[in-house]
Amino acid sequence: MAIVVVGSVAFDTIQSPFGKAEKILGGSATYFSLAASYFTDVRIVAVVGEDFGPEYESVLRQRGVNLDGLQRAAGLTFHWGGEYGENVNEAKTHFTHLNVFEKFQPQIPQQYLDSQFLFLANIDPILQAQVRRQMRNVRMVGGDTMNFWINGKRPELLATLKLVDLLLINDTEAKMLAGEANLLRAANKVMAMGPKALVIKHGEYGATIFFGDRKFGIGHHPFRAPALPLDEVRDPTGAGDSFAGGFMGYIASQEELNREVLKRAMFYGGVMGSFAVERFGPERLQNLTREEIDARFEVFRELTHLD
Amino acid sequence: MAIVVVGSVAFDTIQSPFGKAEKILGGSATYFSLAASYFTDVRIVAVVGEDFGPEYESVLRQRGVNLDGLQRAAGLTFHWGGEYGENVNEAKTHFTHLNVFEKFQPQIPQQYLDSQFLFLANIDPILQAQVRRQMRNVRMVGGDTMNFWINGKRPELLATLKLVDLLLINDTEAKMLAGEANLLRAANKVMAMGPKALVIKHGEYGATIFFGDRKFGIGHHPFRAPALPLDEVRDPTGAGDSFAGGFMGYIASQEELNREVLKRAMFYGGVMGSFAVERFGPERLQNLTREEIDARFEVFRELTHLD
Repeated sequence: MAIVVVGSVAFDTIQSPFGKAEKILGGSATYFSLAASYFTDVRIVAVVGEDFGPEYESVLRQRGVNLDGLQRAAGLTFHWGGEYGENVNEAKTHFTHLNVFEKFQPQIPQQYLDSQFLFLANIDPILQAQVRRQMRNVRMVGGDTMNFWINGKRPELLATLKLVDLLLINDTEAKMLAGEANLLRAANKVMAMGPKALVIKHGEYGATIFFGDRKFGIGHHPFRAPALPLDEVRDPTGAGDSFAGGFMGYIASQEELNREVLKRAMFYGGVMGSFAVERFGPERLQNLTREEIDARFEVFRELTHLD
Repeated sequence: MAIVVVGSVAFDTIQSPFGKAEKILGGSATYFSLAASYFTDVRIVAVVGEDFGPEYESVLRQRGVNLDGLQRAAGLTFHWGGEYGENVNEAKTHFTHLNVFEKFQPQIPQQYLDSQFLFLANIDPILQAQVRRQMRNVRMVGGDTMNFWINGKRPELLATLKLVDLLLINDTEAKMLAGEANLLRAANKVMAMGPKALVIKHGEYGATIFFGDRKFGIGHHPFRAPALPLDEVRDPTGAGDSFAGGFMGYIASQEELNREVLKRAMFYGGVMGSFAVERFGPERLQNLTREEIDARFEVFRELTHLD
């Protein structure tokens, strides 16, 4: 079943201990779409500028991503520049040129309206809510956010959270949003704001899904999926969006939404995140096969499986 | 099969957001022994002072812990005082009175020499090596250390690591010991220093066991056990030692040492750590039943288990 993602399609200039890449394809909607494309049909809503040439577009097209909702605006594409040190969990931002993204007004193409799944990647919560309201027929809405909105647009974010079924954020964001240092209590506070379930991403330690009530009919015990200990994280950019793509993509590929599907989705999220960081930019997500993905799924499973 | 532990038996004065406890029973050997006592016979080697009354001793005796190796010295017992804030992962030390621990010279009672397992809790690596050399018949040696020795007695610690089969440390210690920010590369560097396997504890995210070679005959893929998301961590003191006690205790209770045993041991380590932090001091570890432990083992299993 098709999934619509609204977010950024952008350029990144990235430095890490493993090298440097100038103006490569990036953005939350890009990583999400590529990761999800191995599981289901993906439809993008985003904006790019005049410098976004066909060579970038073809990366997405080759994975079958629908670009009907990719707007073109006068000006330059959103461009982020940053650097990772030895501790790959911390990025140092060099510059953030919002460019055409600053005036982004998401428009949902008519032919997207039958989509059953929606992912609101990390953009202004006001825009997230606008998109959510345009997509009346969706079965499930996933969302992301970040410290910038948690601190800077809290009332707007709280309004948006009421429209989200499943929120995916990291530990720091969850604790900041809840104003609570304990992870489980933070999770419960965040779910009381609206989401029925909450995925908290722990970086190299994996991710945990918490269930706030029984609306999914899948019990309330949390579930934790591991991350693979990797000896080289070349570029962590997009790991969280790739996780979300694998997670939501797998869910959208299944007929039923039950606890076992969500558990497997957590593993597929981790798998796609682990592929993303192996190369600069989204390179590794462009030429995978479902066999490679499922082989790594088994490695993840073996990592925590008791006979 | 019996396990000998050498470490500290001490008093702790602890403050956390949940309250305060004055001069309660503590110490690495105490937490280790209580946790391991649910799985196997435990024998302590430690030193206490004249203020260590029979009421403290009886806590250990009631769990069947052998105290033949508990020396009594003139002076006061080791006493640590500290505080945990909202972030329970960071302790603020108020005082460290080493007292009789400062001149501790471990003596292994004759009747301990048939023990097949040895755990070198976090003490001076010179003493760890002395004890190791006295225990010639052991099948497996586990060990712990901390930043204080990694920075302050590195050559001595490196000598001791050559005598340790299985080292249990946390992320920060592993990265500091290896001089390497990547966890997997750090693990491999630490194992090159001696240990055949390395357990890296991730606090609330669980723990990972890495295998350096095939001497255990159990393959080389790492294995990760979760930690239970808890809504109240009343007192994190002793969590790591309780993990080690559950881990080593379970191993010592098994006839064979294979990969499946080590995997289950990782889960039992997490289970005992999760009990330890629920109450101040080692209170929760005093009156458990094996049924309660196995019930929580199943909760841990369910937390990551894919059908």
